[in-house]
Amino acid sequence: MTYGVGLLLDEGLVFASDCRTTGGVDSILTYRKMRVFECPGERVLVFLSAGNLAVTQATLSNLAEGTLGKKAHSILKAPTMYQVARLAGEALRDVHRIDAAHMRNHNVDFNATLILGGQIKGEEPRLFMIYAAGNFIEAHSDTHMFQIGEIKYGKPVFDRLLVRSMSFSDAAKLTLISFDSTMRSNLSVGPPIDMICYRKDSFCVTDQRRFTEQHPYLLEIRRLWGEALRRAFEDIPPMDMKVES
Amino acid sequence: MTYGVGLLLDEGLVFASDCRTTGGVDSILTYRKMRVFECPGERVLVFLSAGNLAVTQATLSNLAEGTLGKKAHSILKAPTMYQVARLAGEALRDVHRIDAAHMRNHNVDFNATLILGGQIKGEEPRLFMIYAAGNFIEAHSDTHMFQIGEIKYGKPVFDRLLVRSMSFSDAAKLTLISFDSTMRSNLSVGPPIDMICYRKDSFCVTDQRRFTEQHPYLLEIRRLWGEALRRAFEDIPPMDMKVES
Repeated sequence: MTYGVGLLLDEGLVFASDCRTTGGVDSILTYRKMRVFECPGERVLVFLSAGNLAVTQATLSNLAEGTLGKKAHSILKAPTMYQVARLAGEALRDVHRIDAAHMRNHNVDFNATLILGGQIKGEEPRLFMIYAAGNFIEAHSDTHMFQIGEIKYGKPVFDRLLVRSMSFSDAAKLTLISFDSTMRSNLSVGPPIDMICYRKDSFCVTDQRRFTEQHPYLLEIRRLWGEALRRAFEDIPPMDMKVES
Repeated sequence: MTYGVGLLLDEGLVFASDCRTTGGVDSILTYRKMRVFECPGERVLVFLSAGNLAVTQATLSNLAEGTLGKKAHSILKAPTMYQVARLAGEALRDVHRIDAAHMRNHNVDFNATLILGGQIKGEEPRLFMIYAAGNFIEAHSDTHMFQIGEIKYGKPVFDRLLVRSMSFSDAAKLTLISFDSTMRSNLSVGPPIDMICYRKDSFCVTDQRRFTEQHPYLLEIRRLWGEALRRAFEDIPPMDMKVES
């Protein structure tokens, strides 16, 4: 499994993904699941992927090869983010055409989900979630977050605290809390955590970082959030166990 | 979906389950998924169920019918909790034998999970989780909690705060926080929440209650926990967005 998050905020876009890949408990590997395509000053495209690693790697490799030479359908040439999402969906469908039947012969599910976010000059920043079928949805004013992979453990803190107007530093903090909750409850999600904060209209990635297991800020969040939850729990008055309600 | 929790504590057992049943978003019903069998002074058995409602109801109905008349295999006669769990597994397998092929004809999964907990005179309180296949596992000193159904949203708070020595009132509080987190993030889990706290060696259920959506203690937990999380979030220093880590 994996865990990936994309946020569409007033300030710009936040992306985060873990690096654990599991093919059973005896096959735990570290893979970066975040990929950036950049034409500084003109476009930034960020992909997060979850699902079968062979499927998502093939999809991203196809997209990367499409940007080389004079290919007609390059995500670096597409005029809008919508067209980039279409190309990404097509790339997934190509992998499906080639691999799905063979995978089925070995009882392997064709599962893959991508988050695509970024900005192309002339447009606002946009955020998409692309399904294994190659179709996709786009974030908008009411839903400005997408999660992929092992999404449930880390969703409650977003449901309570995420607002579109929050600052990058608050959004980064919230995202790391969500990742910490997920990693505590599920072994299939693990550090390091890759994070990008893309500032609207900058058309380049300036804030990209990696949080290893021992990163001081991740350790601080883990300690403070744990202590705060314990205090919050103790502050709620106990239920009276004598009286029937 | 549904959400059910069973805790094995030093003081005794805590059970909680929601009441929402969904057959699609246009078919949301309220069903109690907690069933108690009691021989005051001698045994208390509590079942929680998740999964296909027809399967779990049939299973519990079979177990209930087995307690009538002079049936040889009654959960009210079984000498140990282990034997009760065996009978419950058998009841599930009977339903599978009768219904599974027909369900498959209609592309309906045979899914069902039961939590069984209780105490029979001569034994300590015991807690089991019974799978659709009719086999089961038992809680012990290291793992003293089982969850069934929509378990992920509400797991992080248990992972951080549950200890076996906690009081009933703390355990009830923690369980309601877990349910509140789940209900906020997932529409398929909904009130009322049924809860039983069974005190070790009491051999009767004295503390059984139902938390409706407007129950004052549930409302208080929702408000205080939400406020405390927001405070906890604000108390964690922001990440410095200028400096690369």
